[in-house]
Order: sequence, then structure tokens, then C-alpha cells
Amino acid sequence: MKRSKLSTEAYIKGVLSGDRIVLSRAITLCESHKPEDVSQAEEVLTAIMPHTGNAIRIGITGVPGVGKSTFIEAFGELVTQKNKTLAVLTIDPSSQKTRGSILGDKTRMEELSRNPNAFIRPSASGSALGGVSSKTRSVMLLCEAAGFDVIFIETVGVGQSETLVHGMVDFFLLLMLAGAGDELQGIKKGIMEMADAVVINKADGDNKSAAKRAKVDYQNALHLFPKDESGWSPKVNLCSALEKTGLEEVWGMILKQQDHVKQSGFFQMNRQRQQINWLKENVSELLETAFYQNNEIQSVLEGIVQKVEKGELPAMNAANLLMRKFLDKK
Amino acid sequence: MKRSKLSTEAYIKGVLSGDRIVLSRAITLCESHKPEDVSQAEEVLTAIMPHTGNAIRIGITGVPGVGKSTFIEAFGELVTQKNKTLAVLTIDPSSQKTRGSILGDKTRMEELSRNPNAFIRPSASGSALGGVSSKTRSVMLLCEAAGFDVIFIETVGVGQSETLVHGMVDFFLLLMLAGAGDELQGIKKGIMEMADAVVINKADGDNKSAAKRAKVDYQNALHLFPKDESGWSPKVNLCSALEKTGLEEVWGMILKQQDHVKQSGFFQMNRQRQQINWLKENVSELLETAFYQNNEIQSVLEGIVQKVEKGELPAMNAANLLMRKFLDKK
Repeated sequence: MKRSKLSTEAYIKGVLSGDRIVLSRAITLCESHKPEDVSQAEEVLTAIMPHTGNAIRIGITGVPGVGKSTFIEAFGELVTQKNKTLAVLTIDPSSQKTRGSILGDKTRMEELSRNPNAFIRPSASGSALGGVSSKTRSVMLLCEAAGFDVIFIETVGVGQSETLVHGMVDFFLLLMLAGAGDELQGIKKGIMEMADAVVINKADGDNKSAAKRAKVDYQNALHLFPKDESGWSPKVNLCSALEKTGLEEVWGMILKQQDHVKQSGFFQMNRQRQQINWLKENVSELLETAFYQNNEIQSVLEGIVQKVEKGELPAMNAANLLMRKFLDKK
Repeated sequence: MKRSKLSTEAYIKGVLSGDRIVLSRAITLCESHKPEDVSQAEEVLTAIMPHTGNAIRIGITGVPGVGKSTFIEAFGELVTQKNKTLAVLTIDPSSQKTRGSILGDKTRMEELSRNPNAFIRPSASGSALGGVSSKTRSVMLLCEAAGFDVIFIETVGVGQSETLVHGMVDFFLLLMLAGAGDELQGIKKGIMEMADAVVINKADGDNKSAAKRAKVDYQNALHLFPKDESGWSPKVNLCSALEKTGLEEVWGMILKQQDHVKQSGFFQMNRQRQQINWLKENVSELLETAFYQNNEIQSVLEGIVQKVEKGELPAMNAANLLMRKFLDKK
């Protein structure tokens, strides 16, 4: 049975009062592509805007196998013990070809999902970008309007989603393992240079000394990277999400970085720039959607792509040809 | 006095015969935005396509002050001594806010510009991306059709141009200095992870021992990076462009990497993927140009951007609003 829709007023009131059920439904509304939902979502977002921007936004990335779910669960528990409310925007593992999916959705973050101060929301599955999309920012704003103090955004570290998430958070945390071996295969190039911190997980048991050596190695390596515009030097931390050690230090470090960027003025500047970039990204996404979903384009695209692949048609010519088709018919 | 235009036939014949003057004019044609030039350039490109793809394409990046011009000059001389013809696509320094511009255009690569086996072409100035644009690929193809064996594409290492250049070359070389200090300020994050080799320049005189230490540091750091899809591990080399030392080793390393990727099949796969990406990039660029140059959009854009910056209008709403305007009017 389909639930009747809420009024725009009811969405706004429910979200602002922190009603979890209404928040969930407002997120679903924002993720919808139906034209009537899109325009209602716009009204809701406009109304809640003055109540957004007050959370610490943290991106957490790492390849499958690094213990991301366990880390988020343990670290999330710690954050809520600090009297902070926490919203976690996760990637729905069932929609991803990751080892996480073997565990199934229910066993993921079981404790955290029962924590009254935490709210877990899997991203809409089926997105091309590893579960992160332009909608994720809207979801983040809704969570902020609902009063959450801290927001985690999880990504899988292998695709384009990291750059997008890096562009919507205040702190970008890369989760790694000691022994940069096979588990690093497939991680996207450039991610390490974007990280505000590298946290080496599973620093427990027999792994402990290897983790300590890895910490020194990463510290030396990060030292060679170009300095961040914010003036913050990326840190390397050790933790064991399983044994719940080192998490306090990670939280302390994030607070320290927040102090740093707020005092330097980088925080505000960065948030403003992120807004403008968001606008540009949305424009590009909407333009490309309009283009690639255009019937005229779809009817010829595959043949043209094949010619380009074979080197029969220069890519520039192909683009010009497609564009003339698109602009003529619009 | 304006030169009369060449016929399409004359462009094609001239380029394929390696006529430098016709090549230069064909490049100018390809860089032009005039509609009649665009369509003539398309004809020329289509005709020369079967004669392209045979050069080693090398991207060379590094921030101002690293000695990029001196390196390209010395390394270019060495390449031509190997009986290779060389085309160098440089950034016009007068159009860049770099220290290079102080020297002026004429003193840059003076020797190389007199070398009969080298052809130097500054990129069209005024481009938003540090002199590199979608046109650069077409220019590269023209140079290949004219028979050049090796192509250098220079970028300044600070903007978006590096990702574009990385997407059009077979080898990406990052030029650095020992003592990763101030000279690294402003280099774009993620570039180090894209490099197939880090070459530490100015490894001469008093700098020598610092350069040797830096080599070890970078080797250790690069070892921690995710492995390249090609299976190639990035190398670190020392050189002095001034004293012309270490250049032979850089050239040997590039040839070794080329052997490696050709044997593994990565080379061909990567070239094909680059073609398709080029098509997508061109489509995006043309879409954005059509959008941002649209009169309707231009008349409202600034006001909307200001509202987004102030947080009065969610970026998503702003994008939807602009897009409706654009698609309605087209």
C-alpha cells in the first residue's frame, strides 16, 4: 500500500523538528526523479536552507576489505558518546560489487543502527557513481536541518565518487591497512593526495608492529605532497575498529583540523566555493542527462562511438556532429 | 596583409608531406573558432586520421621555477640526437602568470627552436586551462600526421590542464626539485599520483646530495601509492638540464615503459579509451559552451550565483531553474 504524500508544509515542519520518519520520507522525495517530486523537493530545500550548514561533514573512504563498516560503527558510537547526534549516509552494499555485500545489509552497523543518537541512511542504489550522486548533497542538507551535529558520508574509494564527496565535506578521511599490497589495487589515483588524514585500521594483534611501521612510512610520504591550501598537514593515525582503540585520537584530530580551518578562514571560503562548484556540477550533470537521453542522440550514438574507437572518425568531429544534432532538435 | 586561405586538399597534402609551414597553418585552422574554419578543420582531421597514432606522446608538467623550459630544451636535443623528430607543444609563457614570462618568448628553448628535427608550437594563449584545451589533441594528431616521432606536451602543473594532458599521452612526467618546499605550493593535488615518473631536476653542484636524498624519499613514497593499472611502477630519476646529465636515463626509462605497456596490451587499450574519453570531454565542453554563452542564461546567471553563494538558494534548485530556461529557449 502506497502512503499518501505529505504536504510541503508537513515535510518542512517534520524535518525541522527532527522527526526521523518525516526526514526519511523527505530524503526519498529528494532522491526522486519524478517532475512533481523534484519541484516539491525544491520547495522543501529552499525552506530548510537557513537551518543548514551547522554539522561537521566528514567523508570516509577506503576500498572493500579495509573494515569501513566496522570503523564507521565503532567511530560513530564514539561520536554519539560525545553528546553529538550523527547521520551516516552509507552506500547500500547490496547495490555494490563489494565484499561488503556478502555480509548483507542487516549485519552492517547493527549496533549503530539501534543507537538513538544515530541515523543511518543508505544511498539510493543504482547510481553510476558508487552510490554517491548530486542528490547526496541535498540529503546532507536535510540531515543538517533535522539537527544532526555530525555527518559521515561513506564512499568505496574506487570511482569518481571520491572527488564528488571530497567536494562536499569539511574533512576527508582515507581508511587504509598496513602493508600497502593487494588491498590497494583498484583504489583511485589521487585519493591519497586529497586526504586530510590517513587512518590505518586493524592495528591490533599481530598487525600492530606492521601498522606502526606503515604509519611512519605514510607520514614521510605525505610530507612530500604539496601542502594543502588550508595549511593543514595530513595526519596519519592508527586504530583498531574491532578493539575500539585509537578512535578517540581520530576524533580529537578532526576537531583540531576544524579549529585550524575555522581560525584561518579557510572553512568559510571552502564552504562557499563548494556551493558554487555544486551549482556547476549540477548544471553539467543536467546538460549531460538531457543530451544522452535525447532520442536523436541515442539513435546514432553507438555507431559514432564505434567509428571513434576504430579511429575512423576524429573524436572532435564526432562531438561537433552530435552537438549540431542536439542543438537543432531542441 | 592576410594570407589567402589554403584549400582543404592543400592542407592535407602539406601536412602529410611534413611541410612545416602548412602544418603551422593547419594548426591555426584547428585552433580557430570560426564556423567555416571548424568545418574545414574537420575535413582535414578526418583525412589525416589514418596517418596518426605513431608517435610517443609525452606529457611534461612541473610548477614554474622547476626549470621546465631548460629541461625540455636539453631533453629535446637528446631525443633528436636519437634520430627522432620531435614536436613540442608548449604553453605560451606570455599568456601565463608564471615566472617564465619574465624571460620572454624568444629566450625560451632557443637552441631547440633552431634544431631542424624539432618543431616548437606554443598553445593558443588565452585558454582557461593553462594553454591546454580540447584543441591540443587535434594539434597532436596533425603533428603525428606530419611524421613526428615524439611529441612533448608541456603543462604548468597548477590547474585542470594536467588531468586533460594525462588523458592524451602515453607517458606523464612530473618535474620536481629537491627539497619539497615552497616550490611545491600551488601544484595541483593528485598530480604526483598520476605521474609515470618523477624527475628531480637541478641535481647539480651543491644540490646534488639533497637531490639524491630526495630520490630515495620519493621512491619510498611512490611505493605506497596504489599500483597503476598498466602495472608500471613510477620511477624516480635525477637530472641536471643545465649540465645535461641524467637525460639519457630518462629517455631509456620512457622507452622501457613503452615496451612494458605495449607488451601487456595496456598501450592499445589506453589509447582506445582515451579516444572515447576525448569524445565525452568534447561533448561536455560543447554543451557547457552552448549553455554559458546562451543569452538567456547570461542575463540571469550572476544574480543566481550570488543567491547560491549567500545560501539563499540551494544549488540544486538554481541548476534546475537555469536548465529549464536553457532547454525552453533552445
